[in-house]
Amino acid sequence: MSLLEKFRLGDIRALSRIISHVENRRDGYQELLGRLYDRVGTCLRIGITGPPGAGKSTLVNGLARIFLKDGKKVGIIAVDPTSPFTGGALLGDRVRMNDLPADGSIYFRSMATRGATGGLAGATDNVAVVYDSFGFDVTLIETVGVGQVELDIIDTCDTVTVVIVPESGDAVQTLKAGLMEIADVFCINKADRPGAERIAADLRMTVDTRRKTHESWDIPLVQTQAINDKGLDELYRAIHSHVDFRRADGGFDEHRRAQLERKIRNIVKYRFQNDFLDKLAEETRFDQAIEDIRAGKTDPFKVGDMFFEEFISQK
Amino acid sequence: MSLLEKFRLGDIRALSRIISHVENRRDGYQELLGRLYDRVGTCLRIGITGPPGAGKSTLVNGLARIFLKDGKKVGIIAVDPTSPFTGGALLGDRVRMNDLPADGSIYFRSMATRGATGGLAGATDNVAVVYDSFGFDVTLIETVGVGQVELDIIDTCDTVTVVIVPESGDAVQTLKAGLMEIADVFCINKADRPGAERIAADLRMTVDTRRKTHESWDIPLVQTQAINDKGLDELYRAIHSHVDFRRADGGFDEHRRAQLERKIRNIVKYRFQNDFLDKLAEETRFDQAIEDIRAGKTDPFKVGDMFFEEFISQK
Repeated sequence: MSLLEKFRLGDIRALSRIISHVENRRDGYQELLGRLYDRVGTCLRIGITGPPGAGKSTLVNGLARIFLKDGKKVGIIAVDPTSPFTGGALLGDRVRMNDLPADGSIYFRSMATRGATGGLAGATDNVAVVYDSFGFDVTLIETVGVGQVELDIIDTCDTVTVVIVPESGDAVQTLKAGLMEIADVFCINKADRPGAERIAADLRMTVDTRRKTHESWDIPLVQTQAINDKGLDELYRAIHSHVDFRRADGGFDEHRRAQLERKIRNIVKYRFQNDFLDKLAEETRFDQAIEDIRAGKTDPFKVGDMFFEEFISQK
Repeated sequence: MSLLEKFRLGDIRALSRIISHVENRRDGYQELLGRLYDRVGTCLRIGITGPPGAGKSTLVNGLARIFLKDGKKVGIIAVDPTSPFTGGALLGDRVRMNDLPADGSIYFRSMATRGATGGLAGATDNVAVVYDSFGFDVTLIETVGVGQVELDIIDTCDTVTVVIVPESGDAVQTLKAGLMEIADVFCINKADRPGAERIAADLRMTVDTRRKTHESWDIPLVQTQAINDKGLDELYRAIHSHVDFRRADGGFDEHRRAQLERKIRNIVKYRFQNDFLDKLAEETRFDQAIEDIRAGKTDPFKVGDMFFEEFISQK
């Protein structure tokens, strides 16, 4: 039986192997992934983001348990792109999910950036597509922080929960505008700690201001203590309320369409990178061109145009 | 007299107009910028980065004053890409430089992201090239934070100073690895505040560990109180020591060469974006293709390849 056939029958090892193939962009991964697209579209993608130490992984595990109890199959992707240098050391601290079932109803994958930052969002999306095609009902995507890469990842989700802790008060001030743009649900975790009420009031006020100006969805603000299993049901309901709301107003479908557009654009961009940009440095004349620029004989725009025209016409 | 001729004679208004032209990527900006490359290469680029509220603008102003006293012409670029949403609100807080001379020996420009994040680093580099060609001896580039965009900007600098304040202790813990990679000089500003010694000792230890493993340059750690004009001379000397060190070991030249390579690659990438990617959505068949993917009839990779092949063959 082929790998793909096993995958279609629900073989977890086939799932693992296909993910590795896709994640590492091994030869033919596009074709492989492309073949999975005939069964894609039913899996709900839930993004969970927030600063380091906000307890996101505990929250994600807690949410996963509720979905399991609900009879759903759950895929998890934990992404840590915070540092392009360490390769995601924070994942090392992740609470392992030893207490979750090993019957194929849940699957966990962590991803960290390696080298090309631009590729991480695409790689995460690819793994989520594999999950979707495998038959998971929901994919929980966990990311750290709100940099550009995280935004790109979070943007592929149907609904996004931003997790804050009372300690992150100052960070919230700085990031407020950005957080408002991405949050469909706010979760104040570790809500038993000092400062929880203050940060909740602060967020409430900002949320209210926003709603008055340009948004119809009233962002819920849920307080949780994930480690004590408190508030998770409420968070679960808040997330579903948002999904229902977006399905009703058409935003859900519109967003998925826009994501697919972006996906195609990124695929082409990546191909251009591979076929042309990455090969530029191997060009023998490239070194000479750089010397010429430095000597004031030509400029980077002329050089770039020359190589680009050549690439296009030689095909 | 043409704009370029005025520019070459040192006309500040011509400088302003060319920067605006280049910054806004108006028609023909590549050609205009390309023509400036015959006089580029002598200007030293100094990057100053760190978290919001670290007092970077006061430091940059202080350093600028020392350069001026030294008889140098100074260009400043302040970049605030922290939030892709607010468009750089933090710049509003910037201490204005009313006390700096208006005789053309110093020029200030602030830049904030607008829409395409990918373009900000390139746009900043372009403005720095204009400064260089105009005849500034040094360009100070100030950025906030250490996200990917900031890293791309900072990467175009010959030497980078990372500014920390005692309050940023926790942030330093998280970012340590990243900071170590980009810092050529560490500056602990507001060094009269509690915690300065602790953070200094902490950084000292990390710096020492790093030096032992893979770096020949011994990162200096300078304590300043920019607002009281203390420690700036020492910072100035530390920056110059690094530049001298890098000139001597060849790293300076190597780095500039690598930057130019990257510049050419980015120019081509940007052209591809303009000529092809941005026009994809206008394609009448693009909507149909997306419907076909969603119906499971085709996949994003096949669609992307099709449009890409067409683009290449039609030229």
